[in-house]
Amino acid sequence: MSIKKAAIGIDIGGTNTVIGVVNPEGKIMVKSSINTPGHGDVGKYVADLSEAVNELINSVKLLNDELEIAGIGIGAPGANYYTGTIEYASNLSFDGEVPLVKLLRGYFPSLNAIVMTNDANAAVLGEMIYGGAKGMKNFVMYTLGTGVGSGVVVNGDVVYGSDGFAGECGHTMLVPGGRPCGCGTPGHLEAYCSATGMKRTAFELLAHYNDCNSLLADKSYRELDSKMIFDAAVKGDKIALEVFEKTGWWLGIGLADTVHYLSPEAIFLFGGPTAAGDLIFKPTKESMEKHLLPFYKNKVKILPSELKPGDAAILGSSALVWKELEK
Amino acid sequence: MSIKKAAIGIDIGGTNTVIGVVNPEGKIMVKSSINTPGHGDVGKYVADLSEAVNELINSVKLLNDELEIAGIGIGAPGANYYTGTIEYASNLSFDGEVPLVKLLRGYFPSLNAIVMTNDANAAVLGEMIYGGAKGMKNFVMYTLGTGVGSGVVVNGDVVYGSDGFAGECGHTMLVPGGRPCGCGTPGHLEAYCSATGMKRTAFELLAHYNDCNSLLADKSYRELDSKMIFDAAVKGDKIALEVFEKTGWWLGIGLADTVHYLSPEAIFLFGGPTAAGDLIFKPTKESMEKHLLPFYKNKVKILPSELKPGDAAILGSSALVWKELEK
Repeated sequence: MSIKKAAIGIDIGGTNTVIGVVNPEGKIMVKSSINTPGHGDVGKYVADLSEAVNELINSVKLLNDELEIAGIGIGAPGANYYTGTIEYASNLSFDGEVPLVKLLRGYFPSLNAIVMTNDANAAVLGEMIYGGAKGMKNFVMYTLGTGVGSGVVVNGDVVYGSDGFAGECGHTMLVPGGRPCGCGTPGHLEAYCSATGMKRTAFELLAHYNDCNSLLADKSYRELDSKMIFDAAVKGDKIALEVFEKTGWWLGIGLADTVHYLSPEAIFLFGGPTAAGDLIFKPTKESMEKHLLPFYKNKVKILPSELKPGDAAILGSSALVWKELEK
Repeated sequence: MSIKKAAIGIDIGGTNTVIGVVNPEGKIMVKSSINTPGHGDVGKYVADLSEAVNELINSVKLLNDELEIAGIGIGAPGANYYTGTIEYASNLSFDGEVPLVKLLRGYFPSLNAIVMTNDANAAVLGEMIYGGAKGMKNFVMYTLGTGVGSGVVVNGDVVYGSDGFAGECGHTMLVPGGRPCGCGTPGHLEAYCSATGMKRTAFELLAHYNDCNSLLADKSYRELDSKMIFDAAVKGDKIALEVFEKTGWWLGIGLADTVHYLSPEAIFLFGGPTAAGDLIFKPTKESMEKHLLPFYKNKVKILPSELKPGDAAILGSSALVWKELEK
């Protein structure tokens, strides 16, 4: 039986804007992309984006002319769910605030739902609608990458807070006065538990042990990445193994804080470092349990995201549409 | 015009159980109390408590025989909103779990609402229904006392989480490996920002500066309390002033984390140390602002609770009833 409805998911990144048509079960039917920068101004960017969306819609309608497009969901860094505006768009090379939802409405006036949130909140919704958090009412998701993003679900809804920007758990304090964080405040969880944080830990450990025999000892700072640390750990490299131990220790402290704030049913981890499996999940779980108040112990699951890394952003963005139409 | 409805608020503490009849505007009309321990067993305690509640109801009905009792709200440490059970009642000298709501229902079968939560969540509801958080949908409250309690409101509802125990922000990590905390994990916010934490800071500073001239230098550890630190600070005592500076610094770091998690409209502070006014609020606000991500700065209010300290527990417990009847 052919499906009747689909949602458009748009993931706006610094380099590319990826667009997908997604069915209610979370299957991406077709996708395409345009550059994010290089359109001259925001007005032209939105015009070009709308054209690409329409092309995609037309291509799926050739296969199924009864298909109804339920809406457009957009994930973008610095996006505000309440206002439909990208408020901190500097890394997208736009000037000032971008009222993206309003601009898109001009091109798609008949759509019920055009909704936007930041990329981490979109990932959380993707997990809830299509992934491992189906049916969960209280959970949190951490995305470990260059930085650490996060999203929070309470009573079945993503928490946006009073101004639309809740869920920046990566920027909570882990070590006061510790490592500089990209945001300016030293010591944040992001500076320790991101993929970048793992690389920093590796170099600290190489220096600490003065270890020239480690598999990581022939990499420059610029070239080392978390995948190389993983590969070295699999081969039994002591420095690399200790990087995972320490990262898990720090992340577990942060996750214990999360449990103390919110008492979630589960905490999902997403992103490159989670591909290391037990190497990262085991020390994280042990540290979290050690740091929990007694009555939280052995209750909260730490789970890998069930979304495919390459699809997660589009799936999450499209999930915004189904969530909005539930209301 | 005489009021038509009132709620019973019960605050169960380690020593006393205080009962009050509260009108919808948050005025306590009458109150009484019984001992918490010393009733033999839980069954007898609940029987005696019910008798005291009925006496109180009868006394107000003498003045207004049309008064309807809308329900009973109970605040108790370790109480679970979902199950109506006091699960960690050791400091109440009860053995094991106490199904208090179920037991009380046996005595008040006709009441629509018999509801219980922990004391910090009750305080949060009191602030929302009667106090400074009226109309707020997203806020957090910290209660600074022997320990640090907290409660979280998201989208107009207290966050209980998946198991009923969310909102333990006092037990989030501030200084890994730092001061021992009563819960067993060193370095929690409670160990630094509670009234007890202030006393610990005072003694650390006396030792650090080897200061025999401080007004606090003639107090033993057992006798020093946060009120004495306040009195000394008002007189310009350097150690006492630095205690407030440091406490505010630490608390501000914790509140910045809270903002990054939840983006609340305001954070309320309640408890003895808040009577010091600017001495504690000013360094707390400065530290919070310093530690916030740029897009949160100058948005989040830090406010003193508007509930009278002596009444807050009963008011909060009674507020549970009005909140429950909204549903």
